[in-house]
Amino acid sequence: MNSNSSHSQSSSNNSSRLTSNDKFHDECGVFGVYGHDDAAALTALGLHALQHRGQEACGIVSFDGEHFHSKKALGLVDGTFGDAAVINLLTGHAAIGHNRYSTTGESGIRNIQPLYADMDFGGFSIAHNGNLTNAMTLRADLVKRGAIFQSTSDTEVIIHLIAQSQKKTFAERFTEALKKIKGAYSFVALTGGGQVIGVRDPNGIRPLVLGRLGDSYILSSESCALDIIGADFVRDIEPGEMVVLNGKGVQSSYPLAKKPERFCIFEYIYFARPDSFMEGKSVYESRKAIGAELAREAPVKADLVVPVPDSGTPSAIGFAEESGIPFELGIIRNHYVGRTFIEPSDKIRHLGVKLKHNANRAYIKGKRVVLVDDSIVRGTTSKKIVEMVRNAGAEEVHMRISSPPTKYGCFYGIDTPRTEELLAHSMSVQQICDFIGADSLAYISHDGLYRAVGEARRNKKTPQYCDACFTGDYPAELTDNENKRSGDKVTDLRERRASKKS
Amino acid sequence: MNSNSSHSQSSSNNSSRLTSNDKFHDECGVFGVYGHDDAAALTALGLHALQHRGQEACGIVSFDGEHFHSKKALGLVDGTFGDAAVINLLTGHAAIGHNRYSTTGESGIRNIQPLYADMDFGGFSIAHNGNLTNAMTLRADLVKRGAIFQSTSDTEVIIHLIAQSQKKTFAERFTEALKKIKGAYSFVALTGGGQVIGVRDPNGIRPLVLGRLGDSYILSSESCALDIIGADFVRDIEPGEMVVLNGKGVQSSYPLAKKPERFCIFEYIYFARPDSFMEGKSVYESRKAIGAELAREAPVKADLVVPVPDSGTPSAIGFAEESGIPFELGIIRNHYVGRTFIEPSDKIRHLGVKLKHNANRAYIKGKRVVLVDDSIVRGTTSKKIVEMVRNAGAEEVHMRISSPPTKYGCFYGIDTPRTEELLAHSMSVQQICDFIGADSLAYISHDGLYRAVGEARRNKKTPQYCDACFTGDYPAELTDNENKRSGDKVTDLRERRASKKS
Amino acid sequence: MNSNSSHSQSSSNNSSRLTSNDKFHDECGVFGVYGHDDAAALTALGLHALQHRGQEACGIVSFDGEHFHSKKALGLVDGTFGDAAVINLLTGHAAIGHNRYSTTGESGIRNIQPLYADMDFGGFSIAHNGNLTNAMTLRADLVKRGAIFQSTSDTEVIIHLIAQSQKKTFAERFTEALKKIKGAYSFVALTGGGQVIGVRDPNGIRPLVLGRLGDSYILSSESCALDIIGADFVRDIEPGEMVVLNGKGVQSSYPLAKKPERFCIFEYIYFARPDSFMEGKSVYESRKAIGAELAREAPVKADLVVPVPDSGTPSAIGFAEESGIPFELGIIRNHYVGRTFIEPSDKIRHLGVKLKHNANRAYIKGKRVVLVDDSIVRGTTSKKIVEMVRNAGAEEVHMRISSPPTKYGCFYGIDTPRTEELLAHSMSVQQICDFIGADSLAYISHDGLYRAVGEARRNKKTPQYCDACFTGDYPAELTDNENKRSGDKVTDLRERRASKKS
Amino acid sequence: MNSNSSHSQSSSNNSSRLTSNDKFHDECGVFGVYGHDDAAALTALGLHALQHRGQEACGIVSFDGEHFHSKKALGLVDGTFGDAAVINLLTGHAAIGHNRYSTTGESGIRNIQPLYADMDFGGFSIAHNGNLTNAMTLRADLVKRGAIFQSTSDTEVIIHLIAQSQKKTFAERFTEALKKIKGAYSFVALTGGGQVIGVRDPNGIRPLVLGRLGDSYILSSESCALDIIGADFVRDIEPGEMVVLNGKGVQSSYPLAKKPERFCIFEYIYFARPDSFMEGKSVYESRKAIGAELAREAPVKADLVVPVPDSGTPSAIGFAEESGIPFELGIIRNHYVGRTFIEPSDKIRHLGVKLKHNANRAYIKGKRVVLVDDSIVRGTTSKKIVEMVRNAGAEEVHMRISSPPTKYGCFYGIDTPRTEELLAHSMSVQQICDFIGADSLAYISHDGLYRAVGEARRNKKTPQYCDACFTGDYPAELTDNENKRSGDKVTDLRERRASKKS
Repeated sequence: MNSNSSHSQSSSNNSSRLTSNDKFHDECGVFGVYGHDDAAALTALGLHALQHRGQEACGIVSFDGEHFHSKKALGLVDGTFGDAAVINLLTGHAAIGHNRYSTTGESGIRNIQPLYADMDFGGFSIAHNGNLTNAMTLRADLVKRGAIFQSTSDTEVIIHLIAQSQKKTFAERFTEALKKIKGAYSFVALTGGGQVIGVRDPNGIRPLVLGRLGDSYILSSESCALDIIGADFVRDIEPGEMVVLNGKGVQSSYPLAKKPERFCIFEYIYFARPDSFMEGKSVYESRKAIGAELAREAPVKADLVVPVPDSGTPSAIGFAEESGIPFELGIIRNHYVGRTFIEPSDKIRHLGVKLKHNANRAYIKGKRVVLVDDSIVRGTTSKKIVEMVRNAGAEEVHMRISSPPTKYGCFYGIDTPRTEELLAHSMSVQQICDFIGADSLAYISHDGLYRAVGEARRNKKTPQYCDACFTGDYPAELTDNENKRSGDKVTDLRERRASKKS
Repeated sequence: MNSNSSHSQSSSNNSSRLTSNDKFHDECGVFGVYGHDDAAALTALGLHALQHRGQEACGIVSFDGEHFHSKKALGLVDGTFGDAAVINLLTGHAAIGHNRYSTTGESGIRNIQPLYADMDFGGFSIAHNGNLTNAMTLRADLVKRGAIFQSTSDTEVIIHLIAQSQKKTFAERFTEALKKIKGAYSFVALTGGGQVIGVRDPNGIRPLVLGRLGDSYILSSESCALDIIGADFVRDIEPGEMVVLNGKGVQSSYPLAKKPERFCIFEYIYFARPDSFMEGKSVYESRKAIGAELAREAPVKADLVVPVPDSGTPSAIGFAEESGIPFELGIIRNHYVGRTFIEPSDKIRHLGVKLKHNANRAYIKGKRVVLVDDSIVRGTTSKKIVEMVRNAGAEEVHMRISSPPTKYGCFYGIDTPRTEELLAHSMSVQQICDFIGADSLAYISHDGLYRAVGEARRNKKTPQYCDACFTGDYPAELTDNENKRSGDKVTDLRERRASKKS
Repeated sequence: MNSNSSHSQSSSNNSSRLTSNDKFHDECGVFGVYGHDDAAALTALGLHALQHRGQEACGIVSFDGEHFHSKKALGLVDGTFGDAAVINLLTGHAAIGHNRYSTTGESGIRNIQPLYADMDFGGFSIAHNGNLTNAMTLRADLVKRGAIFQSTSDTEVIIHLIAQSQKKTFAERFTEALKKIKGAYSFVALTGGGQVIGVRDPNGIRPLVLGRLGDSYILSSESCALDIIGADFVRDIEPGEMVVLNGKGVQSSYPLAKKPERFCIFEYIYFARPDSFMEGKSVYESRKAIGAELAREAPVKADLVVPVPDSGTPSAIGFAEESGIPFELGIIRNHYVGRTFIEPSDKIRHLGVKLKHNANRAYIKGKRVVLVDDSIVRGTTSKKIVEMVRNAGAEEVHMRISSPPTKYGCFYGIDTPRTEELLAHSMSVQQICDFIGADSLAYISHDGLYRAVGEARRNKKTPQYCDACFTGDYPAELTDNENKRSGDKVTDLRERRASKKS
Repeated sequence: MNSNSSHSQSSSNNSSRLTSNDKFHDECGVFGVYGHDDAAALTALGLHALQHRGQEACGIVSFDGEHFHSKKALGLVDGTFGDAAVINLLTGHAAIGHNRYSTTGESGIRNIQPLYADMDFGGFSIAHNGNLTNAMTLRADLVKRGAIFQSTSDTEVIIHLIAQSQKKTFAERFTEALKKIKGAYSFVALTGGGQVIGVRDPNGIRPLVLGRLGDSYILSSESCALDIIGADFVRDIEPGEMVVLNGKGVQSSYPLAKKPERFCIFEYIYFARPDSFMEGKSVYESRKAIGAELAREAPVKADLVVPVPDSGTPSAIGFAEESGIPFELGIIRNHYVGRTFIEPSDKIRHLGVKLKHNANRAYIKGKRVVLVDDSIVRGTTSKKIVEMVRNAGAEEVHMRISSPPTKYGCFYGIDTPRTEELLAHSMSVQQICDFIGADSLAYISHDGLYRAVGEARRNKKTPQYCDACFTGDYPAELTDNENKRSGDKVTDLRERRASKKS
């Protein structure tokens, strides 16, 4: 049944994203604090440090021992939670928060997380980074049994699973619900009992780390959000692990059957902030290593190595160091372009990428330039950048990409175009090179990428990642997708979303 | 369990109502249209005509044959639905709407009606005028069975009852749900099948009328909302009747056991607009008849009959005609005072009633004045008005009230203070007269009121009203209230709300 | 030179006035307080009581002995000054305020009064009710001498006249400026020396009264604004009089040559609030007297006297009393329609007058109805009201108007259509009667009007008013208008404005 | 005398700048277009590219041959002018625009440029980058002669000088006005005749360049704003030169007496965007050259060269290249911190610099780090950054600054603290080193700076800059400042502003 889509909230701002940068996008960042008087203020700061994981909306739910308090809003963290008056209403020693990247035109505010529900045993709030691959299937079943959904979010499924569970304790109910869901998830949750809970899916696809600030414990998508509040990094939460933070400290358990670890390799390439550590490895260091590997795999005679700002910078430094070609800021970024440029004029729109980037003519003119970027998705931005660099007088433009060709869509919480829209799905590297107008184009090889990021993982037996976007090898079952193919009337919300964007 | 109250939405506007006029307040107006291309525009106009029944928030849900469209907002109807761009998004040939009077500080936007839910069989939306007297009891049970409530509204109970019903057809499910609820209700609902449904509770406590505009059918709380769109009044919906408006016209049924008819007599006294007809009788005519009856019951030698604007005007005209004392606008109302004056300065606050009313000195000075008002609730406004009239030079001030003393709170959808706060609950008429500082005070008698409003009902066998606010004789069971008294942990949301307001 | 019009402020809200009620409109109310710690709060209340004189914008300027403080905004007084935080910034013991009715699309915020200027001798602020009839002529001359105008307001002329004066004292400068201006004006001004000054033009066309609250003095357009703050009415300011309120009390002087007193008679008919006294006479009483005179002049056999709400009510009561025909609220007004209904949908627009008024069918059906209204301007509203009353079943509809036919535009601060657009300018009474579809139509006679409002003026020798809108006899020279006719390039801002509205 | 300050606009947003980055700040960017149908759209883009020169407010005035159109607003360019509806109102083939950095609490919207005035000869609009050093002195005189100022902006003085000029032609009037003003200015102006005019002060302190786009001509503070619209760079406007852009092309004249060229050297160090060319030299190249010079002047044994993002990056690259020490992103910037973080909570405030920067621990730990920044103003940020880098495990922290010590305030349009607040005014380099906690600190020498930026100027005879902030040698007279010292009652607005901020 697809009544889910039948209720649209009228929304007056139909924004078109001028500055959408033709990248894959992380859909969420999560953060939680237990045991600090300023739990909400710390959570606001944590979300601010995780802002790169989602800029569309943010929310915080706190618990003061008796009542839950909630504030959710569209826009950046500092716009809402930079206001002391807002923070002061979010009282309590425990809080969780969420940044969201993306939404559909039809969902609006009701999909902002953390979600909250009153249940038989009290209040419950949850924030989610990832995507459940059997959410639609579960939802259809829950609706048949009388559940009323308020959002189109896959995350709401877990709330109804808990609410309908007939188990006695909250822990049993939550575990029962977790056993039913599939896909990628790093949850932080807050219970009426005042506990903060973190869970990572059995493949450990999305990140989640544990930190400590004095007597308080912290959960965060990335370690950079521990730094902002001066908290210490303790460890990564393990795949399939559940941690409960309460007055007794941190209790760890493994309620779910073990699966092979498959951490998202794209976190190293693009999603994570370079100052974060993930699975024991510095993201910045990984990117430099990828750049160096790329310089070895695909060397080129050139005068300058120029990063496509800002994501290409660490790989470009690595490439420059390895190749001995000077590193220069050959493209200057306008720092005042956010990712949201609402309703631009058509007159502005056609000028495209220049709103954001400008060639640094003084250095480009007459030079052979190596551009380093992290990925090519649809290729539109790359094409414009190559053209801009040529127009600034470059003699040659060589593009080097710090990921293998992205050929497959992601079902684990990353916003990607449909597979058919991915340039590398239907074009060879040479065809892409021609399309973007470069003199040469090279991607890092799959093996090269593993070599680059694998070094820091030598203590683990089988270094293995989720690299489905390059290989199509999806570690967690795509139940909704399969049901859909087999003719079931399960609505794939993600599909609908994608089609809306075109 | 009272977890219901444990989730507060942070709200930045703590409004205090300066101009709250010490009246009972209707909590809602409902409106619905089936079979018109401009269903939402007509609904907006209908709600505008019903604005006196609720000024705090308004909402419209439409259905276009495939999708539901919804817009809800705080504030007056014209503020939101006076905008063509908003109306144009609410496409479809069927729509329902709702005006709300009152809300608690802790509920905000999520309580605005019409409520909407995706169910197994499709979308469902409902708007409610009235109050369910067993909502908390039902809610506690539903939550135990896994229902997740999104609002603190009693109306949401009916949605979950429908969702959890195991009956096959929507009609059976709705009927099953109706059989479980108690209290006062006039519902208008909109189904995924595209039908508009109206239901009135078995006692017929709250009003609901049927109208027709060409081939379209209309449901409305009052007939004045038919006039605004040029629709014809067809008839009152009967107590306990359900009407279904669809492509086949109007189907009527009586799914509930019959009960004695007990229409709210206060609709005649104050709530309804004077140009409406209710249960076959003109509201304006009823008020004039009450005024005339009052002149006979409590005559007084005086020079002027002065209405307390604006609700006292028809009764004052009736009083003046019957007594032969001239009718004069001895109190002038400032038309630019809405019912909401957000965050007034303390310096303004103490000036109180003058923001709204001023004595017309030219006519008051040296005169014996009869003031006619519809009711005295806490007495604060009456006291100030008597004082203002005296300060303007009146020799005598006689107060006449067109209702009997209001001694009991209402549980059927009217916002009243708690019984203990009602002046007439603890004071005699003479004590009230002394409190407000009048030279004399008289209320219409209970029998006089029935005589005045009963004339038009002579064709019905037992003319009987809900007059519980005067008598304490509540026609529909007060289940939640009784459960609460008997020690159950049922939270009385209404109580909590009342206490917040003080 | 007409560069004045060459600078447009882009404005995003192009409002169309749905509820414009086809009346003449007063363009301003003014208020001032000297000698009270809460001067701004009192001014806010005064402006609230004068809200009927202008609803588009409002402003207050206060002086704290050292600094001026200013707040001006579009919208109603309570929207801006109902906020204690705003009032608290307007410190000082002296304040002046202004309500504005009307603006052009091209002026926006910079035309909101009080205007303020830094001058050689200190700050100066002024608020104006009226219109200067030689403003454009003076302005052209001032611009030639280097003055830079910031608004299109005629009021700004007086500021530049003061600034450019070479006299030594402020009093001399102000007097010199006053001697140059012509037309209608009631000024309240605030000087850097901390004085509040009131001036009324030599014909006394617009009203201005003096009040007292303890040791403080008040200036106000109408006495009703004294009542709201509990101040006593002292007297009308005389035509041509200047009063200075300062620490020494009230100093009166007559700096201008005397002219015949010509108070605007339309203040009695429509503009003023009925609870105000003007030139010694109650406005309510005047309106009743006009109604009674009308009943004598134009009697009719009928069953009901029905006021067109709300302005027709006092005259209707007077008509009913004199004629013996019962007074009834045969037309019900929706109290939730303000005068601004921004961007209504076209679907709503065509429904016209019903948004505001509804016939009270119960009383209209089968009756002969006398409608009493204060004026007919373009006739569009009257036509709709007659039609509405007929559709509600009236057997006969007789229209009685409490003013003579309005044949000429006003140049003294009232917003009127151009002379050519006035129905009575080109139609006979019978033609107008046919146009609006009434069974009979009568206006009060010119003599009858004088009789009705003259009674209270028997102590004055030659009771004479400005009645130019009926007679074309303009008491103050129309310099700009004449210059324009004689081919000079003086821009008539009023004309331009009028043409924009069509 | 100083009534200028006596009029405060009540402002509700008292923002405190959390993220103020302890730098000198440019106060303005200007842009103008003549001869393009999309003049306003091009201007919006130009202002966007100049956003780094002022983020507080922006405005555009266009001229369509008959009317001027204006839009000004607080906030970033894309927030206001990213909206096509706004741009579409700004019709015409000529437009000028302005970005403003800084304002006083008391000025608000009326100080936003371009300023506009109606004059005898028509409309006139002007935008200004710089500061007039005799504005207060001229203003006092103008006010005495009847001028009424609307802003506290020094720029308004030039408008009144033009308005009061008795010369016949506009050109003569403008020239007369220019001859009276002193200080630093790059003006772009727009006249009722439809010309766009650019003027640069005789010392050429602030930049202004000429560009061309097809048949259209452009004026801009920096060449990077030509790139964004694809315009060609033509040349720098010369010191003391006036250019008039109209239908005949570009007319150049030199109305003012020649003075020694003294371009602001800090434009190279910090203000300008690295992709701009100024006075024939690439800003990026200049910064790299400064870094290289610094490496030669103040070498240090270290493992990493780390820029303080983002302004230190080009110098750091230059330092790294020259020294052979690897360049690394050892400090990561959060891209979502704007320069305005309104009303942060105190709980957030104390966390200070981490909101914006985080140490990249993976690379810092155990390393000897050279930090490269462009300047130290108050030293608070530097102190925090050194501490952050140490806390991340650095063994040594050496600070290198790409400007000489900033010891004197600027009077030419740069927002600097008062001289007394400048760290280098009262501390030696060693004391500053101790204060910020570095292991060593070196500034580039004055000679070294000239060497670094001088290379590109070898064709000019006496390469000389305004370097008053290092030397106290002010090229243009500080008239207001001297008048103030000599006891005159001239209000120094800049001083007042500074004191408000503390």
